Amino acid sequence: MSKFNQLISSFTIVLFLICSSIKETKADNSSHQSVVDSTMIRTIYDQALVNGEAYDNLRVLCKSVGHRLSGSPAADKAVVWGEQVLKKMGLDTVYLQEIKVPHWDRGNLEQAWINSGKPRELRIATLGGSVASKGKITAGVIEVQSLEEVKNLDPQKVKGKFVFYNRPMDARKISTFDAYGGCVDQRYWGAVEAAAAGAIGVFVRSMTTLESDHFPHTGSMGYSDTVTKIPAVALATEDANYIHDQLLKNPSITLSMNINPTWNPDKKSYNVIGELRGSEFPDKIMVVGGHLDSWDLGEGAHDDGAGIVHSMEALRLLKAAGYRPRHTIRVVLFMNEENGNMGGKSYASIAHDLREDHVVAIESDRGGFTPRGFSLVGNETQLKMIQSFRELLEPYGLHFFEFGYGGVDIGPLAQPLNKIDADLMLLGLVPDSQRYFDFHHTADDVFENVNKRELELGCASMASMLYLLDKTLHPIK
Amino acid sequence: MSKFNQLISSFTIVLFLICSSIKETKADNSSHQSVVDSTMIRTIYDQALVNGEAYDNLRVLCKSVGHRLSGSPAADKAVVWGEQVLKKMGLDTVYLQEIKVPHWDRGNLEQAWINSGKPRELRIATLGGSVASKGKITAGVIEVQSLEEVKNLDPQKVKGKFVFYNRPMDARKISTFDAYGGCVDQRYWGAVEAAAAGAIGVFVRSMTTLESDHFPHTGSMGYSDTVTKIPAVALATEDANYIHDQLLKNPSITLSMNINPTWNPDKKSYNVIGELRGSEFPDKIMVVGGHLDSWDLGEGAHDDGAGIVHSMEALRLLKAAGYRPRHTIRVVLFMNEENGNMGGKSYASIAHDLREDHVVAIESDRGGFTPRGFSLVGNETQLKMIQSFRELLEPYGLHFFEFGYGGVDIGPLAQPLNKIDADLMLLGLVPDSQRYFDFHHTADDVFENVNKRELELGCASMASMLYLLDKTLHPIK
Repeated sequence: MSKFNQLISSFTIVLFLICSSIKETKADNSSHQSVVDSTMIRTIYDQALVNGEAYDNLRVLCKSVGHRLSGSPAADKAVVWGEQVLKKMGLDTVYLQEIKVPHWDRGNLEQAWINSGKPRELRIATLGGSVASKGKITAGVIEVQSLEEVKNLDPQKVKGKFVFYNRPMDARKISTFDAYGGCVDQRYWGAVEAAAAGAIGVFVRSMTTLESDHFPHTGSMGYSDTVTKIPAVALATEDANYIHDQLLKNPSITLSMNINPTWNPDKKSYNVIGELRGSEFPDKIMVVGGHLDSWDLGEGAHDDGAGIVHSMEALRLLKAAGYRPRHTIRVVLFMNEENGNMGGKSYASIAHDLREDHVVAIESDRGGFTPRGFSLVGNETQLKMIQSFRELLEPYGLHFFEFGYGGVDIGPLAQPLNKIDADLMLLGLVPDSQRYFDFHHTADDVFENVNKRELELGCASMASMLYLLDKTLHPIK
Repeated sequence: MSKFNQLISSFTIVLFLICSSIKETKADNSSHQSVVDSTMIRTIYDQALVNGEAYDNLRVLCKSVGHRLSGSPAADKAVVWGEQVLKKMGLDTVYLQEIKVPHWDRGNLEQAWINSGKPRELRIATLGGSVASKGKITAGVIEVQSLEEVKNLDPQKVKGKFVFYNRPMDARKISTFDAYGGCVDQRYWGAVEAAAAGAIGVFVRSMTTLESDHFPHTGSMGYSDTVTKIPAVALATEDANYIHDQLLKNPSITLSMNINPTWNPDKKSYNVIGELRGSEFPDKIMVVGGHLDSWDLGEGAHDDGAGIVHSMEALRLLKAAGYRPRHTIRVVLFMNEENGNMGGKSYASIAHDLREDHVVAIESDRGGFTPRGFSLVGNETQLKMIQSFRELLEPYGLHFFEFGYGGVDIGPLAQPLNKIDADLMLLGLVPDSQRYFDFHHTADDVFENVNKRELELGCASMASMLYLLDKTLHPIK
């Protein structure tokens, strides 16, 4: 071997050693980081599953406050409760954000009958926002499967009658939210379309995956300024099936309805807010939240008591794990998601006026079931970032990291008018959806139908996602 | 450009075109195959979710047969039911496989008390296999956390007393089966260890993730031939917590127990078997099954009624989708998983004697909850094969494809004595585990606690896995 070759050879070896050493340092750093992350996530889950407070918090919200429609005394009570719980957590700041909310009241009459032979009472729930029937009204009934079908009906056939929307949620959809999305137009726009055709009222099959259910499922509905406002109610699927069968035998049977909801002047209410102040980027905000209001049936346990305690617990878990966030992490208990979204809209508008810089918003509003992952409203780079967490989160049963939906409350933050940071990411916690519409908007959405472990896993998932985003965004250069 | 260069260039282009064309044909074939597969899987899921029969089958098993411990009249009834359902499905063959099963009976006495002040009755379930207490026995009690602790106790302190095993399942485990596995030694071996130390009976905290539950959870226990057989019962966790608190106040309180189970002579019973005969490899068998017997509390709805209807429905779904399997697909409703596994052992031994070639065995015995994936007992190549199905199955919520556990019933097929085909794969359906031990082995394991959609998704998962394995194994060369 020549001297030159020897030199080159030595040089190569040295270069190789340097490179290896750099590579090793890098690997060490990244594997060290991965150990730090996995240890923190393990700590978060241990805290949630062994010392969790979410389940007890949910019990109090459900049993002491109960259902809490915007504008109701219970909604005021929920605000006080939320503020108290956040204050006890020792956050850096807790405050109320004043907003205005609509105030619709179900009233004390909610009756309907099918009149074929002896009248048989139907299990109904007045749809949120419906006008009153102004006494008992009785009429024939036209059963339809869609808004489109009403549009194409001979108005002479519809005039003076009830329209009965009976299209079920599509059982083939794996995500029940997809099935809901494909069905809920009947509930929301059914009264407008029916009134335009001359109908006097609307019955809608309940939005549920249960084929035979004795609970009616309420929910929001809309009116148009240009069309008569007619009353609308949801029917328990058992009763929807019954009416369908009776109509097959005798298309001229009648239905009766007697409901007396009222629309009242808007009321003052609040979003409840708490913060852990960021150590490096105090002005960059990561929001986590759910909605504090609920429909006025049951206890709003899954919808959205679960999301409320998920979000509050996420901050508590980070604190309990001894983690000081780099960005400001703000929990928001939004008011009025169910019938107006004034909490979400007002929050975004105030944030815009204050020129606040929101980098992330995470919502939990799909129930307290076993978490499966997160859906993202964002760009490809952000999706890749979220997907890069998969290895750390798969041991906890989180596998789903895809584009999708954030949540109603955080939605307005991303609207062009309010959007300050073009890189704002919206994330929605995705729990298992199979049982959600068993309880959704019914008297059966109660604490007893929430499983403690499933709820706690949701809390830890939210906290872990906050932790990973807080670590990953705005890296030290 | 020279002629030669031109020639080379033309040759390169031709080569490129040939290669592209080969590549395209390959891609076309593979993408065509992928479309065929995804269409078939979609058909399977649609059938399960829209025209599913599993839920109605489970209702009949739970409500008309009820719980069905091996050797009981109900177990005989379950065999008749299983055979009837399979026959109605129009399989190529349905038959009973005679086996012998142990016959233990709970008796009609199952009482226990804590005697501190006025005796207070405790909610207990005699452990499966326990001997009788032979009248009411009363004694002091030593609370322990483990078998190890009993080994290290001063025998003078244990002699003549009850041992109370009170280690809870570890809430930190994400899979509740891991928590069960880390705890169940108390239930299974508790009596042996306690008797060796001189105790007269055993109370075991129920195996459940519920911290406060009024249902006692039964389950199997063992004895040793060299140690006195002492009676053993499971305590509802609420009562285990109560005894613990009372012992803190007064270590000298006593407990009483009065149970009269009996061991009876072995009985004749059956595995129930049905087959779709393979078109290409009729002698290569893919088994799918669960266990038909249950504990003698509740209705054995999740354990393992769900697995039974999952397995039967999997074959029905393949038929309904118009799929003719290449391998013989055999559903086996195994008898006696809970207290002896004579169904699984006998099946494997008969298969060995007949020199049957089993290529796959899939078991469902972890409840009727939302399926998350499959665990494999096999080799790396097989794992890769299973993981290659992920893309097709992720849209249906199946993400978990890892080494793990198959099932008690199919386990003996892989034992060296019985193993004919070294490439036999064992697969276990992995549903969400969070709620399983809420119901496991209790009076609360009833039909009402099974969700229809969650059950149906399990059926479709099993059918889809069978389809993909049937297509993939033994490819046409």
